[in-house]
Parts: sequence; C-alpha cells; structure tokens
Amino acid sequence: MSGYLWEKTGTATDEGAMRFMAGEDVVLDRELFVFDLRATAAHARGLGRRGFLSASDVGRIVSALDELSGLWAGGGFVLDGRYEDGHSAIESFLTERLGDAGKRVHLGRSRNDQVLAATRLYAVDALGRLVLLLRESAGAALERARDHAMDPMPGYTHLQRAVPSSVGLWMASFAESFCESAELCSLTRGWLNASPLGTAAGYGVNLDLDRGGVRDELGFGRLTINPMAAQAGRGKHEVQVVGAMWQAMQDVRRLAWDLSLFSTDEFGFVRMADTATTGSSIMPNKRNPDLAELLRGACATVGGCLAELQQAVSLPSGYHRDLQVTKPALVRAVRTTLDAVGLVPGVIGGTELRLGRMRAAIDASMMATDRAVELAAGGMAFRDAYREVGESLGSLGGIDPAESLRARVSAGACGDLMLDEIGARVAALC
Amino acid sequence: MSGYLWEKTGTATDEGAMRFMAGEDVVLDRELFVFDLRATAAHARGLGRRGFLSASDVGRIVSALDELSGLWAGGGFVLDGRYEDGHSAIESFLTERLGDAGKRVHLGRSRNDQVLAATRLYAVDALGRLVLLLRESAGAALERARDHAMDPMPGYTHLQRAVPSSVGLWMASFAESFCESAELCSLTRGWLNASPLGTAAGYGVNLDLDRGGVRDELGFGRLTINPMAAQAGRGKHEVQVVGAMWQAMQDVRRLAWDLSLFSTDEFGFVRMADTATTGSSIMPNKRNPDLAELLRGACATVGGCLAELQQAVSLPSGYHRDLQVTKPALVRAVRTTLDAVGLVPGVIGGTELRLGRMRAAIDASMMATDRAVELAAGGMAFRDAYREVGESLGSLGGIDPAESLRARVSAGACGDLMLDEIGARVAALC
Amino acid sequence: MSGYLWEKTGTATDEGAMRFMAGEDVVLDRELFVFDLRATAAHARGLGRRGFLSASDVGRIVSALDELSGLWAGGGFVLDGRYEDGHSAIESFLTERLGDAGKRVHLGRSRNDQVLAATRLYAVDALGRLVLLLRESAGAALERARDHAMDPMPGYTHLQRAVPSSVGLWMASFAESFCESAELCSLTRGWLNASPLGTAAGYGVNLDLDRGGVRDELGFGRLTINPMAAQAGRGKHEVQVVGAMWQAMQDVRRLAWDLSLFSTDEFGFVRMADTATTGSSIMPNKRNPDLAELLRGACATVGGCLAELQQAVSLPSGYHRDLQVTKPALVRAVRTTLDAVGLVPGVIGGTELRLGRMRAAIDASMMATDRAVELAAGGMAFRDAYREVGESLGSLGGIDPAESLRARVSAGACGDLMLDEIGARVAALC
Amino acid sequence: MSGYLWEKTGTATDEGAMRFMAGEDVVLDRELFVFDLRATAAHARGLGRRGFLSASDVGRIVSALDELSGLWAGGGFVLDGRYEDGHSAIESFLTERLGDAGKRVHLGRSRNDQVLAATRLYAVDALGRLVLLLRESAGAALERARDHAMDPMPGYTHLQRAVPSSVGLWMASFAESFCESAELCSLTRGWLNASPLGTAAGYGVNLDLDRGGVRDELGFGRLTINPMAAQAGRGKHEVQVVGAMWQAMQDVRRLAWDLSLFSTDEFGFVRMADTATTGSSIMPNKRNPDLAELLRGACATVGGCLAELQQAVSLPSGYHRDLQVTKPALVRAVRTTLDAVGLVPGVIGGTELRLGRMRAAIDASMMATDRAVELAAGGMAFRDAYREVGESLGSLGGIDPAESLRARVSAGACGDLMLDEIGARVAALC
Repeated sequence: MSGYLWEKTGTATDEGAMRFMAGEDVVLDRELFVFDLRATAAHARGLGRRGFLSASDVGRIVSALDELSGLWAGGGFVLDGRYEDGHSAIESFLTERLGDAGKRVHLGRSRNDQVLAATRLYAVDALGRLVLLLRESAGAALERARDHAMDPMPGYTHLQRAVPSSVGLWMASFAESFCESAELCSLTRGWLNASPLGTAAGYGVNLDLDRGGVRDELGFGRLTINPMAAQAGRGKHEVQVVGAMWQAMQDVRRLAWDLSLFSTDEFGFVRMADTATTGSSIMPNKRNPDLAELLRGACATVGGCLAELQQAVSLPSGYHRDLQVTKPALVRAVRTTLDAVGLVPGVIGGTELRLGRMRAAIDASMMATDRAVELAAGGMAFRDAYREVGESLGSLGGIDPAESLRARVSAGACGDLMLDEIGARVAALC
Repeated sequence: MSGYLWEKTGTATDEGAMRFMAGEDVVLDRELFVFDLRATAAHARGLGRRGFLSASDVGRIVSALDELSGLWAGGGFVLDGRYEDGHSAIESFLTERLGDAGKRVHLGRSRNDQVLAATRLYAVDALGRLVLLLRESAGAALERARDHAMDPMPGYTHLQRAVPSSVGLWMASFAESFCESAELCSLTRGWLNASPLGTAAGYGVNLDLDRGGVRDELGFGRLTINPMAAQAGRGKHEVQVVGAMWQAMQDVRRLAWDLSLFSTDEFGFVRMADTATTGSSIMPNKRNPDLAELLRGACATVGGCLAELQQAVSLPSGYHRDLQVTKPALVRAVRTTLDAVGLVPGVIGGTELRLGRMRAAIDASMMATDRAVELAAGGMAFRDAYREVGESLGSLGGIDPAESLRARVSAGACGDLMLDEIGARVAALC
Repeated sequence: MSGYLWEKTGTATDEGAMRFMAGEDVVLDRELFVFDLRATAAHARGLGRRGFLSASDVGRIVSALDELSGLWAGGGFVLDGRYEDGHSAIESFLTERLGDAGKRVHLGRSRNDQVLAATRLYAVDALGRLVLLLRESAGAALERARDHAMDPMPGYTHLQRAVPSSVGLWMASFAESFCESAELCSLTRGWLNASPLGTAAGYGVNLDLDRGGVRDELGFGRLTINPMAAQAGRGKHEVQVVGAMWQAMQDVRRLAWDLSLFSTDEFGFVRMADTATTGSSIMPNKRNPDLAELLRGACATVGGCLAELQQAVSLPSGYHRDLQVTKPALVRAVRTTLDAVGLVPGVIGGTELRLGRMRAAIDASMMATDRAVELAAGGMAFRDAYREVGESLGSLGGIDPAESLRARVSAGACGDLMLDEIGARVAALC
Repeated sequence: MSGYLWEKTGTATDEGAMRFMAGEDVVLDRELFVFDLRATAAHARGLGRRGFLSASDVGRIVSALDELSGLWAGGGFVLDGRYEDGHSAIESFLTERLGDAGKRVHLGRSRNDQVLAATRLYAVDALGRLVLLLRESAGAALERARDHAMDPMPGYTHLQRAVPSSVGLWMASFAESFCESAELCSLTRGWLNASPLGTAAGYGVNLDLDRGGVRDELGFGRLTINPMAAQAGRGKHEVQVVGAMWQAMQDVRRLAWDLSLFSTDEFGFVRMADTATTGSSIMPNKRNPDLAELLRGACATVGGCLAELQQAVSLPSGYHRDLQVTKPALVRAVRTTLDAVGLVPGVIGGTELRLGRMRAAIDASMMATDRAVELAAGGMAFRDAYREVGESLGSLGGIDPAESLRARVSAGACGDLMLDEIGARVAALC
C-alpha cells in the first residue's frame, strides 16, 4: 500500500546531502564563538543558582570555558569541519575535559535559544563597533569641515551647478549623515538587546530557570518573554541589523559617488591618495579611484544580504531549518560593513582637495538664487523676483563666492555651519 | 561643429515626456496635502517672526490655508491633474485668494525642503497610526491568550509535533511580536522626527530663517542641521519607515501562515470567520481563507517598495529627480500596511478555535522532552537522558497535556505565560 | 469545547476586509480585459467544437463578446467597482444579453486558468511592444552612430579619461545593448507562450476539452500540459517577464547616467532638449535634465516589482490568493517600462551633441595605450611596453584623435564599428 | 591653495584598503580558472594567426598553459593570496616558464575582456550543468509519476481539499516545471553565448585581432561586437544567469514546501529518507525534514545574489571597479543552485509515499466539482449547477476516487497525464 525507497539513493547522495546541510556553518560560527562561550558560562551559572548544577560543577565548567576562550584567542583551538557547529565544539571540549559534568551544561536549553543568544550578542557587539567607526568617520568629516569651513565649491542639484557652496558644508553633511546612521545603529542595538536564553526550542522548559539572572549577567536589557516570539525573532532581528548597516553603507556610497565624480578630470575637485587608487592593466596613463568604487559597490552586497533574509523568512510559527541561511547573510553584511566603514576616516582624511579647481567652477550665474531671495526679502513676490533674475542672468556682475557663503545664514547653511552642534551630537554617540 | 535636434522630436513625444515626468505625483500628493498645508502655515509664521512677512500677511495666509484645509476635508477642493503637484496647488490657491501676498509664502524655501517636511510629517503620522493598530492587534492577541491560557495545542518545530503547548503561548507570541514591531515603529518615528524646513534646495538661503521656531511649531524633535544632509535623507528615511512597516507585516505574515495552515482539513485547529473567507468559482464544497492569504501576500508588496527605494538611491550628493520615485513607494507601503494591520484585531478575535482538534493532536511521544529534562534535572547528563527517553518512546504511558503545560515553568513558557508583563509593555506603547 | 466569534467583529471590519480583498483588482483588469475577451471567445468556440455548447450558442456568445469588445474600445463599457473583476464583468454582460447561454461559457474553466490565459496573452503582447520600442531605440542610436561615426570623444574607465573614443562607438553601444535586451524579450515571449486554458483550478476537468484547438486559435506555441504546473507558472512567468523588462530598463538607466553626467557643466558633452528639462523652483539659472533622471529612477520601480513578485511566491503547490499581488506588480512594471522605453528614441535623437567640448577633452596622455600596444606588437613584452610608455607620458607629442580612432581596428572598435552588422541584428528583431 | 594628505593615513589603513580591494577575488577565481586558461590559449592562438606572436611562441605558451591546467587539475598548483587574481597567476606562471614570450600573451587584451570571457564561459558551463541536473530531476519526477499514475491523493487549492487528484499529477507537475526552468536555462545560455574577447577595456585595440577565430575556438555563438556594449554586459549577464537559476530554485522551493507540509503528522502523506532528516537536540521523539527546509531556504540565497547584482549596476558607461562584486554573487548563486538541484533526484526518488494516508484524505464532498461539471455539461448553466451541488453536498453518496481520476480527461489532467509528451520535452533538453 505504501511507496518505497528509490534504489538510486546511495551513499554518494547522502554525503552530498550531509555537506549541503552543513553548509559553511561551522566556519561562520567562528564569528559567534566568543559569544557562545560567554552565553554558555552564563547559562551554567544560572543552572547553578537554581540548583540544577552543583557549585563545583559550575566552577569546573566555567573554568573549562575560560580555558577554551584562551585557547581560541591564541589560536590553540580551531573550529573546523571536525565539528558540526560551534555549539557541539563547546560541548565536545567540555565533555572531554570534565566528563559527565560537561554534558550537564546543555540542561534546560536548546541549540535554538543558544544560537539566538550568541547571534544577538554578536549583533549587539557589531552594532557597537559600527557606531564607533561611524563616530570616527563623522569626526574625520568634521575635521575637514572645520579646516575648510569657508573654502568655496559649487553646490549642485541634478548635478547642475546651482549656488556657491563650501567644502565645509559638503563635509559637514557627511558628519551629520554618519551621525544619523550611528544613532539608528544605537536604537537598533537597544531594540534587539533582549535575552532569548531559557526559551529553549520555542516552548520553554519544565525547569524554573533563572532567566532574569542570565539576562543581567549577559548585559541584555530585558527578556524576550514568550518562547515562540523569541523564535520568531530569528530572521526578524537580522533584517533590522542588516537594514541599519545598509543605511551606514548608503552614506558611504554617497561619499564614494562624490569622490568618484569629483576625481574625474572634468570635475577635478579631489585627488584620492595613492593607496586608494590603482593603475590600469592596459592604460599606463591612469590612476583609478578603485577604493571609492569598491566602497560604492559594497552597499549592494549588504543590500543583497537584506534581500536574502527577507526572502528566507516567509514561514509559519516555530523553528525551521531554513533559518540557517540567516547566519551567512548576517555575517557577510557585518564583515562588509565594518571593513568598509573602517576605511572611511582614512579616505576622508587622505583625499587631497583641489581648492583652486573648486573655486574656478563657480560662475556669476550661480549668484542668481541669492539675488532672487534678496529681491523677494525686499518685498517682491518670490516668483516675480525669480523671473526678473532669470531674465537678467547675464548682468549679475562680478562674483564673490565668499560673500555669498557668508550671507547664507539660515541655520546649518554655509554662513552658519553649526559644526559645534553637529560635533556635540557626534560626541554623544555611544 | 555641434549636433542637432532630431526632426522626429515633435509635440507627441513631448507630451509623452511631460506625462512621464508628472507620473501620478499630484494624486499621491493627496496623502501629503494636509501635512503640506500645516508646514506651509508654520513656514509663513516663521517668516513673520523674522519680519520677512508682515503680521497682516501672515494672518491672511494662515486664514487662507485654514480655509483650504476645510475645503479639502469637506471635498470642496480636489487635487488633480490641473495642478503640477500639491505644492503648486497650495500656491495657486493662495495667489488666487490673496494676490501678491500669496506668492510671498514661497520666500526662503524650495520644493525640496517643502516635500521633505511634508513627507516626514506624513511618515511620523503613519508610524503613529501603525503603533496604535499594532497595539490593538497585540491587545486582541492577549485577550485570546488570557481566555485560552491553558488550552492545549501541539507545539511544532520544523512543522513536526514537538511538545504540548497552549493557545495561550501561541497567541501571546503574537502579542509580543506585534509589541516588538510597534516599539521599532516608535523608535523609527523618533529617529526621523527632525525638521528639514529651512534647508531649501540643499544649500540653505541667505535669510536668517526661524528654523527652530518652525521645528517647534510642527512638533519635530530636532533640526536636520546640514542642508545637504537633509537632502540625503530623501530615500534614506523612506527606507527606514518602509523597513519598520515590513517588520510589522512580517508578524502579520506569520499569523497568516499559521491561520492558513491551521485551517486546513488536516490540521483543523481554526475556522476563519465567513467574512474572511470566500467560495470557489468552480468548487462548491470549499471555503477558502482568502483574507489570510492576502495578508500574507501583502508583506511582499511592502518588501517590493523597500527594494524599489533601495535601488533608486544610488546617487551622488544633492537632489536628483530620481527621488520622485520614493513617493509612490512610500505611499504604497504605508497604505498596504495600515490597511492590513487594521484588519488583524478582527481576524484574531473572529477566528474560531477548534480546541477539541487541538487537544486531539497531542500524543504521548510529545512528552519525551519533558521526561528527558526531568531525568537530566535529576542528575543524568542531558545527552544520556535524551538517549534513554528516545529508546523508550513507546512506553511513555498516558498523557496529561495540562500537567505538561503547568510544569513548563521557565519564564514566559506555558506554565508562566507572563501575560501581565507583556500586557504592560503593550500598554506602554505610544 | 470550541472557541467563539469575537463580538467586536462587526460590519465595519467586514467591509474593510472586503475592500482589502478586492484591492484594485478590477481596475488592473482593464489592462487584461481585451485578452480576457479574446480567450473567452476561444474557449466558447472550443466548447462548441466538442459539443458542450450548441453552434448557435457559440455564435451568440462570440457576437456578444464582439459587441463588448467594441463597447470597450469605444468607451461605452466601463470596468469599475460595480464588478468584482474583469471575469465577472464579462459573465455579467453575457448573461444580461443572452440569459442562460451566457452562463454556459464558464463550463470547463475556472477563474484560475482564465486569469492565467489573459495574463500570458497580456505579457506576450507587452513583450512584443517592448521589442518594437527597443528596436526603434536601437535604430535611433544607430542613426546617431552613423552620423557621428568618427567624431571623437573621450573613452572612460572608472570615469577617468582613458583613450580617444568616438560618438559612433558610444551610440553603437546602446544600439547593441538595446538589441541584446530585445532578443531577451523575444526569447522570454517564446518561453512563456504556452496555453494554460483547460487546466481549470489546477486539476483539469472531467470534460474532453479541445485544449489544442484553443491553443492554436489564441496563437500559443504549445500547451502547458500539467494543470498543477500551469498554476505554478503564476508568479514564475511574471518574474521572468519583469526580469526581461528590468534588463531593458537597465540599458535605459545606463543611457540616463551618461546623459546626466555628460550634461553637467563640467563635462558639457550634451545638452538635452528643452522638453526634457525643467527649471528650478528656487534657482532661476538652471535647466535640469529631469527626464534623464526619471528614466534612471524608473529602473528601480521595475526592480521593486521584481522583488515583490519574488517575495510573494514562496508557497506550496496549488493556487493561493496571495498570487493576486502578482497582478499589480506585473502591470506596474509593464506600464513603467513601455512608457520609459517609448521615450528613448526621442531622447537619443533630440539630445544636442557638443562635439567641440568632446574633442577638447582628449589630451595627449590618452594616446599612451595605443602607443604601448604598438610597441608590444612590435615585439616588446606588453608589460615592458606599458612601463616604458608610463615613464614617458609627458613626451607623447601632439595628438590626432582621428588617427587613433582609425587605427583602432579590432572588430567593433572605433576603426571598424560594424554598424551594418549591428543594424542587421536590429532589423532581425521581432 | 590645495588641500593636504591627512597625517593619520598610515600603513595600517593602507593595508586595510589593500585587503578590502582584493576581497576574496583570488579565491573566487578558482571557479573561473579553467575557463581563463582556455580563453588565454585561444587568445594566444588568435595572436599567432595574425602574426602578433610567432608560431613557436604560440606553441610554447599553449604548452605551458596545458601544463598549468594539468597541475591545477591535480592539485599541483594552488591559487591563493600569493596572486592578485587568477589572471596574474597565469601570467606569472607563463613568465616564469617562458620569460618574455610569457609576457607577450597579454598583447591586445585587458583584464576587462579577459574576465568577461572567463565569466561567460563559466556561466555557459554552469547553465549547461544545471540543465542536466534539472533533466535528471524531471526524469526522477516522471518515474514516480509513472509508478503512481493513478494513485489518488487530494488536490488542494488555498491548502483546502478541493478535488481528488493523483500522485501522478503531482509528480508530473514537477517534471514539467523543471523542464520549463531547464528550457529557460538553455535560452539564457544561448543568449549570453557571445564572445567579448578582443574588446579590451571597452574600446578595442589598435590591432586587427582575429576576434572571429577566437570566438569559434571557444565555442561562442557570436561576437559581442561593440566594446562598450561588452563592458555593459558585466552585471547584466550575471543578473540573467542568476535569474534563471532562481527560477529553478523556485521549483525546488515548491517541492520543498510540499514535502515539508506533507511530512507533518497531520498530512502524513510522505516520509523523507533518514538521510534527509535529522533529530532534535532537545526532543528525542522527532525526525525533522531538514533537507527539505534547507532546499527551501536556498532559494532565498539565490534571490539575495540577484538583488546584490541589481543594486550594484546603477552606473554610467564604462568599466568601474564596483563590478567586482558581481563575481562573488554569481559564484555563490551557481554553487548554491547546482548543489541544491543536484540533490533533487535523490529527494524525489528517496521519499516514501504513504498512499493509504493520501487515499484516506479524500472525502465525498470533494466530488462536488465533478458533479457540477457533469450537470453543466448536460445543459444546466454552470453557475446553477454549482449552486445545486453546493446545496446537496451532504448527499453526494459514496466516493470512488479512481472513477473521478479516470473521468478527468482534459489534456494533462489525471485521466490523461500525457507523461510521454512531457517525457519527450524532457528528453529534448540540452
């Protein structure tokens, strides 16, 4: 009445299936390993506080975990294909060192809440690092803004020359954008900083675990209370982390676009450092702004990770193995973003500004808007002022960009850059 | 020496180009219109405070804007193809009513900061509405969780029956997930709640505008200081708003998946209300859970809007007309999300729970985990307990799901749902 | 024992649910209506050939459908909220005209295969239109390439000036890219041109329908044989159609990027027609290349539709109502693409080429690659030639771009553009 | 007048920048290496035919490339961080073996057309492999369809039981879907099978290269004529390859969804092979269909690669270093797809079909559609037949699914599965 096992299914296929199921999981776990160790120690101590582990077992387990941490940091322990994943590597180490006591640490948890905990700690850490890098990037931009606060350069809209602007305004815009993205990262970190430990495989356990104590020990700000909600956070949290990183990368992409454009012969406003450019394999005359282009492209990589996560998580409640794909996507996004943003301070600081070229690109017609606003402020309807100036573009007379910049006094504009206020926001980042 | 205008370029092409450039912009501006009116009044008052408009002009302008708001609310003013967009509609109305005074309101701003301001107010409002709808959804889920706190249903992982669980746990998971998404919406709202008014087209103006006063009047929490950073927020902010909405929709999608699955004949755990189901055009025997499926599908619509936004904004600094595509994407995401989440409380409340079917789906083998944990808590290594229970699955004896649920006492689990704690978080949403 | 209907669920919610479920379906069906009419007539004739409808009923039905087509074309029949969708509008019209005979046309089909058929016919038609527009666009590019075959302009890599190139090469590149995208559209059209009619709701019917006859009458190249596979094509086919359109839009985006860049003051290589540019609301001195920017942005819209489709279709076998979201995504992508590509010939033809500016942007160092290749062709190792030329950039002497272009004789390069070969490929498009 | 190099830019930053720019390029080139070797040999022979290399140099170069191929295949040559990328590894090997003759092979090409050529050959090869795997998958599905052609199982729409269906219909649907995706892969392969060699860095070279001869030797079907169009193919082609792979993965995802659903206790229609399932770390009673879930999730990975590619390529004409990100995205998609689809034949063949459970899930009300169609075929209007049957669902009498299946005679349905026709399409795949 029932079907049958097809004969072609032999060992080869099974090995392929095993390899496919393992993926690169154990390699990715290298990123999560220190967090898994930390969470394991906290779990052990929590079991101890509730009497599920003896004090001496807790002590031995924590010592062995410390030893493993040390080995790991020093390269004396390697996480590779000998282990299914980081979790089993820890358990295997503990069991080898401590026998039965080592096995007891898995009481009251599942790989599900274990990976959730390690991933959240990893994400919190990564967002924290990113905040610092963005802060440093904003600082580098502010420094250049201060040094060139009133150095004129053209302001563009639609890539068309619009009004006189300044290097100060341009650079300060990155300071504020990076700051905004850093604030987003901080908010995101706070949002996901909830302990999932103790939710097991999505249904909790029949033990009165010390979830609150473990939460505090690991620095989580609150509990994810409901175990099924904790499971539902897999993928959901990753999306939000990667989304925040994408925003930082979008700022970087805007910077990279500007550098790419401004380092053309036609604009000629900047010259990237030699270490950020490469030669051509066929054209000896060129220096190419490769680093800017790769920073620009890296935003797409993070965007791809986000799309992968979003496509993966159309699922009913409960854990599903599909969620394994969230790990490489998260790790790739984190690495790409930290690597890229880490280069930004050097790029900002190391790029030569060709102030003469910038100044020379400002012509008289760019004073038109200032003039129209002046007329309008004097009582003429703006649309009429606009028309009048438009008709007399040729006769705007000599230009003095410095005067235009000084007169642009609306808060934040060239005449009032408010660098200290932006700097205060940057300094407050954490 | 130079090229030429190709002769085929005639009126027809130009009209097509005009239509293409206009897009559905003026229709979409209906969503933003009240916010544009509000921001225009604030701008006028700000001009007045700095003496760029006389007190009487300010009064007449604000009165006319009030009149237009009233007409708009009552259907007496229609925004359609007669206007290029909402901004010109306002200006046209003011000029018609007030002559030159009407024209003066555009002094010191650009359509760029005007659309930024209206869009941020719109987004803040939409996120606020969404928080309320999510709060209501969480409330509906909590109510059902309370009513069925200890009614047993199977708990699944990998869609396989795992352990006894409860309707209370299931429903509470949505309460907490909705709450988490609502908190994200609140954070996002706070993050983008910065006034761009006074940044003009990205370079400020040569007028000492009262940016702080306008900010306060409109309820923004702070300024976007740098005008170029304000421009860079176009698209960036939309991505974050739509991303937060996607998270809410992902919760809805999980609910929809569960309802879709649980309303199959095979599971038979729920029966959606008649108003949420439809018949088949060819199969008279069926009632289909269309509403659940459409709610599930709506998440993809919001995801598509996010992808559109992310693909649109790979640009150098400064305004570019490409950014016009951010408006329909934002509006579509907002409408879809508010419509969908608005239906959730009714769906949660109106779905019949077939408790007998749920109870009947729990079998003895599902007690295995509890038993293994008991053995392990009694001192056996968990892996050994696991093996022992696995070998004696057949002899687990009679089952009492209620006992299993009561014993699942880890915080948040079936034996300790912590509904009051979740309820307190829900109540704190704003 | 079982749950209950929650009292809050009243009429208001139900109306919201009805509205949400209807979506804008009936409005979107305006795009599909002529195809639905055509498929309905073919289905009726097929029923007649197998004796399921009398010859006279077939005649009356086909006549009524003809009448409805005429009314529709002339605006005498409006598809709006009075109907659930286009399918019910047709049935309602037939029933009103013909009574029971009208009702009989639904025999042997379901709305599922009906919408599949109409959608495929629509997609085939849209891809056909797009091929023609791309052919016209390629033709416009070829014409300009021919007119300016040897007019020099700089060739860029990394946006850095690299070697002398020509307007001919630049324009011919769009001809070939458009041609390549058109070929993709043709292949896609052939790939999906399979008749789903007669597969009903995914399981066929207990009638010996004339599927082959209906296929031939509608111009489909083959059958989708298996009814479940036909259902699985929903979404799958849309993804492929929208993907092909995205490729065309990507070519358009490259053109738009070039125009945006080349119309800056700094490059100054082109000047877009007045009808493709707009003024600024605040800056009277500018003409902005809005059309280029909106064409660039439109690619993102099509990309968003693709992402929406891909996120929607993670589903088990069989029809699900989620698939309704595939319709607006498809229609939006089709409209956007046809509108955008329809403007391309005018944009290409109507853009002024500033040949003097292009020529002036070529400097002596750009001859370096040619010189290095010459040395290498004469026997020096290329890397050595490269080094030697690199060291003597300053002494490359006077430049004659025309000579460089003539010497670039590798097939397809400036000295041998092969416009006739590209033209032949364009002419072969269908 | 000009700016300055910021002092903080030291060696550390530069090393980071170097690492960032290198990425994992050289490791990814392992996938492309054999194709790069083949294209290099063809290029050398082409240079020989035109007299740019002596016959003896060509001979020595080709011999050395053969030697390198052999070393590579045998593990005697390792591509790693010692080389910048695969291209330089080849050149370095040739130079070491042959001195100046080795350097001469780079004459007339650039790394740009070299990587384009290797990538296209790689893509053509990968699509070819995928066609074979899909063909094998379709064959496995057909075999099961033949073995269980008339074994009844429920047919679902909206996951609701609709009509009696058969294992034959279900399995044949995958055969046809896989076949459709394989046809798409073949079309895609043909579409991109054009030789870019000889287009250098996007502007050709001043040598009369034998582009046609090289094209033929490498098996390309035609030339990409225009060098700038060839550059524009970078990214564009990758998108299309990955898109075709996504379609195959979407079929796999549908299969995975069905297996996931049908292997629940509630459905109980299938039991996946032990090698495709895993146990739980905490629940000893379960066997989880991990392989199905990972196959389902793998579709998201390919979708993420597509999104990454689409976000990366918003660029003006000409090569940009951003395009480097297309390589990892392509390679990840290819590996994921080939690995996943390679497991499908075993999954289809090795899954146990629980025919009794399937048969038992068919109840009398599922005969309603058949009955309504019968009434309608007998002359009653379908809508009336539908209503009549709907009202008498209870009295449909005993059921005989076999009879229902036999009567479902529309082409492709259960009574006429047309397996031979589908088989013929599968056999024609290449």
